[in-house]
Amino acid sequence: MKYVPINSLEIPRFAEVKTFMRLPNVKTVEDIDYAVIGIPFDTAATYRTGARFGPSAIREISSLIKPYNVPQDVDVTEWLSGVDYGDIPVVPGYIEDTYTRIEAGLDPIVAAGVIPICLGGDHSITLGELRAAAKVHGPLALVHFDSHFDTIDSYFGNKYNHGTVFKRALEEGLLDVEHSVQVGMRGTFYSPEDLKGSRELGFHVITAFEMRKLGLQEVTRQIIERVGKTKAFFTFDIDFVDPAFAPGTGTIEVGGFTSYETLDMIRELRDIDFVGYDLVEVLPSFDPTQITAFLGSNIVFEFISIIAYQKKMRQGSQIK
Amino acid sequence: MKYVPINSLEIPRFAEVKTFMRLPNVKTVEDIDYAVIGIPFDTAATYRTGARFGPSAIREISSLIKPYNVPQDVDVTEWLSGVDYGDIPVVPGYIEDTYTRIEAGLDPIVAAGVIPICLGGDHSITLGELRAAAKVHGPLALVHFDSHFDTIDSYFGNKYNHGTVFKRALEEGLLDVEHSVQVGMRGTFYSPEDLKGSRELGFHVITAFEMRKLGLQEVTRQIIERVGKTKAFFTFDIDFVDPAFAPGTGTIEVGGFTSYETLDMIRELRDIDFVGYDLVEVLPSFDPTQITAFLGSNIVFEFISIIAYQKKMRQGSQIK
Amino acid sequence: MKYVPINSLEIPRFAEVKTFMRLPNVKTVEDIDYAVIGIPFDTAATYRTGARFGPSAIREISSLIKPYNVPQDVDVTEWLSGVDYGDIPVVPGYIEDTYTRIEAGLDPIVAAGVIPICLGGDHSITLGELRAAAKVHGPLALVHFDSHFDTIDSYFGNKYNHGTVFKRALEEGLLDVEHSVQVGMRGTFYSPEDLKGSRELGFHVITAFEMRKLGLQEVTRQIIERVGKTKAFFTFDIDFVDPAFAPGTGTIEVGGFTSYETLDMIRELRDIDFVGYDLVEVLPSFDPTQITAFLGSNIVFEFISIIAYQKKMRQGSQIK
Amino acid sequence: MKYVPINSLEIPRFAEVKTFMRLPNVKTVEDIDYAVIGIPFDTAATYRTGARFGPSAIREISSLIKPYNVPQDVDVTEWLSGVDYGDIPVVPGYIEDTYTRIEAGLDPIVAAGVIPICLGGDHSITLGELRAAAKVHGPLALVHFDSHFDTIDSYFGNKYNHGTVFKRALEEGLLDVEHSVQVGMRGTFYSPEDLKGSRELGFHVITAFEMRKLGLQEVTRQIIERVGKTKAFFTFDIDFVDPAFAPGTGTIEVGGFTSYETLDMIRELRDIDFVGYDLVEVLPSFDPTQITAFLGSNIVFEFISIIAYQKKMRQGSQIK
Amino acid sequence: MKYVPINSLEIPRFAEVKTFMRLPNVKTVEDIDYAVIGIPFDTAATYRTGARFGPSAIREISSLIKPYNVPQDVDVTEWLSGVDYGDIPVVPGYIEDTYTRIEAGLDPIVAAGVIPICLGGDHSITLGELRAAAKVHGPLALVHFDSHFDTIDSYFGNKYNHGTVFKRALEEGLLDVEHSVQVGMRGTFYSPEDLKGSRELGFHVITAFEMRKLGLQEVTRQIIERVGKTKAFFTFDIDFVDPAFAPGTGTIEVGGFTSYETLDMIRELRDIDFVGYDLVEVLPSFDPTQITAFLGSNIVFEFISIIAYQKKMRQGSQIK
Amino acid sequence: MKYVPINSLEIPRFAEVKTFMRLPNVKTVEDIDYAVIGIPFDTAATYRTGARFGPSAIREISSLIKPYNVPQDVDVTEWLSGVDYGDIPVVPGYIEDTYTRIEAGLDPIVAAGVIPICLGGDHSITLGELRAAAKVHGPLALVHFDSHFDTIDSYFGNKYNHGTVFKRALEEGLLDVEHSVQVGMRGTFYSPEDLKGSRELGFHVITAFEMRKLGLQEVTRQIIERVGKTKAFFTFDIDFVDPAFAPGTGTIEVGGFTSYETLDMIRELRDIDFVGYDLVEVLPSFDPTQITAFLGSNIVFEFISIIAYQKKMRQGSQIK
Ligand SMILES: [Mn+2]
Ligand SMILES: [Mn+2]
Ligand SMILES: [Mn+2]
Ligand SMILES: [Mn+2]
Ligand SMILES: [Mn+2]
Ligand SMILES: [Mn+2]
Ligand SMILES: [Mn+2]
Ligand SMILES: [Mn+2]
Ligand SMILES: [Mn+2]
Ligand SMILES: [Mn+2]
Ligand SMILES: [Mn+2]
Ligand SMILES: [Mn+2]
Repeated sequence: MKYVPINSLEIPRFAEVKTFMRLPNVKTVEDIDYAVIGIPFDTAATYRTGARFGPSAIREISSLIKPYNVPQDVDVTEWLSGVDYGDIPVVPGYIEDTYTRIEAGLDPIVAAGVIPICLGGDHSITLGELRAAAKVHGPLALVHFDSHFDTIDSYFGNKYNHGTVFKRALEEGLLDVEHSVQVGMRGTFYSPEDLKGSRELGFHVITAFEMRKLGLQEVTRQIIERVGKTKAFFTFDIDFVDPAFAPGTGTIEVGGFTSYETLDMIRELRDIDFVGYDLVEVLPSFDPTQITAFLGSNIVFEFISIIAYQKKMRQGSQIK
Repeated sequence: MKYVPINSLEIPRFAEVKTFMRLPNVKTVEDIDYAVIGIPFDTAATYRTGARFGPSAIREISSLIKPYNVPQDVDVTEWLSGVDYGDIPVVPGYIEDTYTRIEAGLDPIVAAGVIPICLGGDHSITLGELRAAAKVHGPLALVHFDSHFDTIDSYFGNKYNHGTVFKRALEEGLLDVEHSVQVGMRGTFYSPEDLKGSRELGFHVITAFEMRKLGLQEVTRQIIERVGKTKAFFTFDIDFVDPAFAPGTGTIEVGGFTSYETLDMIRELRDIDFVGYDLVEVLPSFDPTQITAFLGSNIVFEFISIIAYQKKMRQGSQIK
Repeated sequence: MKYVPINSLEIPRFAEVKTFMRLPNVKTVEDIDYAVIGIPFDTAATYRTGARFGPSAIREISSLIKPYNVPQDVDVTEWLSGVDYGDIPVVPGYIEDTYTRIEAGLDPIVAAGVIPICLGGDHSITLGELRAAAKVHGPLALVHFDSHFDTIDSYFGNKYNHGTVFKRALEEGLLDVEHSVQVGMRGTFYSPEDLKGSRELGFHVITAFEMRKLGLQEVTRQIIERVGKTKAFFTFDIDFVDPAFAPGTGTIEVGGFTSYETLDMIRELRDIDFVGYDLVEVLPSFDPTQITAFLGSNIVFEFISIIAYQKKMRQGSQIK
Repeated sequence: MKYVPINSLEIPRFAEVKTFMRLPNVKTVEDIDYAVIGIPFDTAATYRTGARFGPSAIREISSLIKPYNVPQDVDVTEWLSGVDYGDIPVVPGYIEDTYTRIEAGLDPIVAAGVIPICLGGDHSITLGELRAAAKVHGPLALVHFDSHFDTIDSYFGNKYNHGTVFKRALEEGLLDVEHSVQVGMRGTFYSPEDLKGSRELGFHVITAFEMRKLGLQEVTRQIIERVGKTKAFFTFDIDFVDPAFAPGTGTIEVGGFTSYETLDMIRELRDIDFVGYDLVEVLPSFDPTQITAFLGSNIVFEFISIIAYQKKMRQGSQIK
Repeated sequence: MKYVPINSLEIPRFAEVKTFMRLPNVKTVEDIDYAVIGIPFDTAATYRTGARFGPSAIREISSLIKPYNVPQDVDVTEWLSGVDYGDIPVVPGYIEDTYTRIEAGLDPIVAAGVIPICLGGDHSITLGELRAAAKVHGPLALVHFDSHFDTIDSYFGNKYNHGTVFKRALEEGLLDVEHSVQVGMRGTFYSPEDLKGSRELGFHVITAFEMRKLGLQEVTRQIIERVGKTKAFFTFDIDFVDPAFAPGTGTIEVGGFTSYETLDMIRELRDIDFVGYDLVEVLPSFDPTQITAFLGSNIVFEFISIIAYQKKMRQGSQIK
Repeated sequence: MKYVPINSLEIPRFAEVKTFMRLPNVKTVEDIDYAVIGIPFDTAATYRTGARFGPSAIREISSLIKPYNVPQDVDVTEWLSGVDYGDIPVVPGYIEDTYTRIEAGLDPIVAAGVIPICLGGDHSITLGELRAAAKVHGPLALVHFDSHFDTIDSYFGNKYNHGTVFKRALEEGLLDVEHSVQVGMRGTFYSPEDLKGSRELGFHVITAFEMRKLGLQEVTRQIIERVGKTKAFFTFDIDFVDPAFAPGTGTIEVGGFTSYETLDMIRELRDIDFVGYDLVEVLPSFDPTQITAFLGSNIVFEFISIIAYQKKMRQGSQIK
């Protein structure tokens, strides 16, 4: 493979400039299967800010990630070439300008058939990513892990922030809502309308309360069934995970999922046809022990592993 | 309702002076169903001190709490008027003076039929609360969630501290021990007498070790059965929860319960006739990511939700 | 006086809901000399965000402030009535809407002749404050303590952020630049134009490098001379102070001033006719020991002391 | 018993010089059953360093440990005399010199029939401990809890570090691999060879992924069966536990075990004939709330409880 | 000398159980010149608590202290034998019982002619120390470095806490106020009476504001002159130092002294006949980088150096 | 210039992969004047470890550095091309192997006439740097800012660690000791021999105690005089600075210098013919507010500014 991580048995993990998983930092779309891209934007957060430092914190600790995924039985360096593409030049304080730049930044990547994996930043960035993706792929099935719906209509009289992003995406026709699903919602709600609202928009919603009753295997079964063969986008808000496992985020909600449960659910979705991924809302200033950024790194690694697994399935081991 | 929280869709959560759940800070007993009251006392802690800053830390992060409780299907602002009553003017360094002030502070609240929800402070404060409550209600069934018994007879030759509080409460006739229950005890003990001691005092005790064997549903069933229709007091020591979920407390004990398990158990107790509640031992200086104070906020919200649920049950939806 | 702080010899400092200096939290302009107002906005920060939590952090630790100022020989409660007015309902993510709300919020205060003391938030908020102040007072002499000029023309193609605020203020005619002064600039610069730029705009600039050569007494003398009898606005960016004394801010610059030097300089300015004050850029997530928020509290207390001192001078002690 | 902890009902836990569990700090092998020994060495860590402060951090918080173990029904002070032996004088920066000193330090302890319980330090120290133990006991069955195999052949061209220690131990004939077991391995791997490698060396390996499928009771059953009646050494790397419960370690791996699961598994092994124990990789600089050091203390207490339980079983209660 | 620190060129500083400056931990008064004694009491603090962990935190980092004092030209191990005596068994929550225990604990030390150096704990402990000292030495000249007077009459209706300690000491006749001095007071005051009050009690007071005007050399000259040949007690509240240099304390006051200024002033007092010393108010939970505890360690080392210097002066070098 | 930093007015500072001062990360010696090189080694630290994360922490916060140096009146991008060369692949745990790799890594850089600026890591790395430099330049005058001498002969029987590095350098003939100087030494010493030892080795030593007496201008005058026209190496241990300004280091010593004093002294040395620089001992795990890493970044920027200033002086402005 052309672009693979530095070998940590030769150069210690704590050495060298920090890129995601020690991948080469190259702004290219040639000869790669996937690109990891930072979108360090946090203007749209409604409570704690600081997620603009998320990509950097994830890069730092991601040097602990090794290439072989045991449960998926796949060595990602064997099947994939990938880069740390660097960051989108967002405009702090200006969300609409930032959307323009996200789209402009992702367009060549998506156009080249490279799978983008974006690191937030707050959840508002996903709208920019979906715009870029839908331009090429058409409306996408959304697989949305979060403790919040993010389908509020507006806050303080404004349309764009991290709590309204999927309302906007629907209005813009970026989602194939019939095949979309939201899972993990919990904590306290403004009113029963929050849940009803998301369902009326057409999402299949499975709250955390329901997930505990259904069992997580049934939840992943429903996700897979819902998405079917539709092209999909996986958006993962780290606050899906319980704050004990992921304290470093802006709007924590207790009663969440463990890291084991989380990674296990993601792995189960390996046959879905994802054309884009993101991992958002990692907030380093509330992550003194780096466990959130590291869990985020592992989630991204699971994304990469799905890409590798699917390539392996497509090609068989003989073609390597 | 007369007193309800600030609407967070209009004024951002991080704005304005911090009160519990953004309730009005009014020292009134008129037109309210419940009052949240800080008791910032930590003189009686035997290991780490600093819980006097607990009420302030809980207020800060509690602005994330929204009014609708999903599993209980109740919007607390629809059924209840409540205030952040401010704090009892405790006397740091002097536990007996403090008890006098706690009683004096709570008397008008209890007398007015308002349900007090106190925020500690160390667990010693519960004795003052029980004195105020028992004066009006008579001896109460205690529902005590904790990793410790708090029924030691004395420490260093003295009778009052956070480890002796329920021994004292019994001696003072404040508890209806036949209907009282202690759950969650774990960690290491001074001797087998600790457990035996609490049982000989008359408590129904279910240790964490026993809880894991019984299953949590059976535990809540036993609590409900034990309390029956007796008027009860719910005292919740945050160290009931595992330190991964609640590191910010003075005497952590490993092998505890998750936040999901905790909140779920509390919700199950919604039919008990609680006339008072407290949440104690939140220690901000060991809570760098605010997860303990936020879990504490959620526990208090569950208390408020029980009050709302019971009012809804009593009145039906037509009377709103 | 009608509104004064809680007496800390009677009610412990750590008790009660946290307001600035334990002042009453009342949204009034009646019977007060000054109002402390939070403006929890951080959308316009170009590096670290999170200053939206500044007002809350300052309130928390400001309960340590006592009313008597030794070097000014003034007890602020003897001369002044003041309130914690709460916060302006800013619009996170939207700077222009926020300016509208800042103006709307401050208008009645300024109109009533009450002196506003605003707590940031990032430095962009000062533009809104100046708009409100200039409407009543006309263009104001600016006394600007900062390690940065904040007179850049634009960032990333946009006009409004915390580094452009005084360029905008000048363009809007809010400043009497002939009597305005910027002090404390240091660290590294984009180019020699930064300094030249501010001077060409008309400011009297004294960099930190020059301050060390001139001596601080000469610096305050020049400020006083420069401002003269013009109505003035005091804007204090906490990054004026060295990061050892004020680590909790967004764009630290080394080689700064001590807390002693800082407070001493402010006190020297007591005869300037300030009609408004602010203290900005306190960032709690980088202030683990609260020393920045506490220094900020002391700076605000010096502001209040100047107001008290001037009233005392005007009225003499017989009129109290 | 000659050497027992200070009584915490008489002298507060936070008082006095900190030794493990408040045991006397005496360098003796007379009249004791076990000795707790610090080995503050971290030169061999491949990622984060700082575990040299592990013994001190564990001592500090271990004063919360009380003597009675509920599930094992044993009061360790009733059956055992033990000391905090202090630390081995390691040579920072020099692993081979350190091994010499570990051996020299442990030889008299092992020779005297005292059971050593060592506190790391990084995992490399176990090789020194095994050398000392095997000299007296012959090759030992290894019970190894860890998220890593630690059987890599070399890093950066060198043979000794915390990731190669059990490869070296095997080569030196210190292990009875037929009765040895490694459990808990997870996270990402360099390649499928990591797992295969450990198995080819002869270890019975149960990865965390397999453990979740087998159930933890089956896992402990397999460990017990595997070890049989062979003399065994228990080495516990704190990164076995999930980072939510044990953030303070050098090479965290997500998807791990809870503290409850961990302690419960250890207790199940109480009939194995352990002749030595260690607890390694506690890293205080990533443990701001002390939960890792405290969990480590509890694990060591479980080790001591096993020694006490076995003595109780051997002697019966009549002989005390 | 019989009792001297471990040699750090042979056993690394991070090794072994932590005692002050690596001195032997022996509860003896034989063959020693001085004893370092912890008094881990924080019940009497009026704002932040937690100073009970001060002695432990100081011990931990004091292992960095080496024996030779450059400006005093004295190697303390050459002239002095000393021990870490461990802690006084205080009674948390009970100040009067604690005073009894402090006296009882110190009596044999003072009686034996050993110089006690106590580590707080909050400043209230000094009353107990003075009682023990005055019993043997009569009323003592107080040399008091602090940012507060600690001569308030009462708080919340009670006589004993860390802000009233020297009022009580005077009332009990423990001080020779004619030769006593308080230096460093600053920050905000309750009223001009605070300062007047201390002066009316008879203290020579030099506030920080006055110190800056007088120069520190003049300040030490005045202290020396004031004390003269009277037997004296040196009480050092760490909040004398600026929070930039000593953030870890309960009631920080800005505008304080640097560590260099502080140590230099202490050294100048080397000819005063001190019969006791303490260093109080170190609060580890606000000292994340250990700089406060380490500065405290250095201050204690300066105390020991004064003892050594005086012995050297008395004996000359021939007698060693 | 070929290689200059990213323009922070176009791409926000928090964006993109973190390199020193946002320089390109290229391993080249072509077309550059200087190279910033990380040497993430901490095996040789005698107290706290973790400085291996120093280069990464410095890179992170160094994005705040802008190109124009006010006191030196030089824009480094106008005069210099430079790169972030990445890190030397050190061998953790093995100091001699690491020296080999440092030399091998630096040889081509020095050979190409590029000025190396190395980021530690602990101070032991300087020996490797000096070996590489002396090979080309012959013995160098050492300008050594530190609070320690680092000329101990051995620790624990071993020759190489961060406290022996300049003893070794002298023995290896790498230093021109007649023109070498050590400044800033303070804190406590093992014995008077420490100071005498360094002087007997031939260094001109100015302790911090002497510096305060001489005044800093006299100190820099003596340094300049001492070095004269000899080729020199500037080694800067961050513990030269007071812990208030630089808490993040392994062996703090109180009573140090401010950041202003430090930078001012460095600037004064701008006419010395430095052929290499390093900045060592930044320890991120004790730097929660990044002030140490940022001060380190500024020190490195002063180094770069000296290189630029000298080039400007040599070439005059006409040749640009
Ligand atoms: Mn979201
Ligand atoms: Mn969310
Ligand atoms: Mn309790
Ligand atoms: Mn408890
Ligand atoms: Mn500014
Ligand atoms: Mn600024
Ligand atoms: Mn291991
Ligand atoms: Mn491991
Ligand atoms: Mn004091
Ligand atoms: Mn004080
Ligand atoms: Mn050094
Ligand atoms: Mn040094």
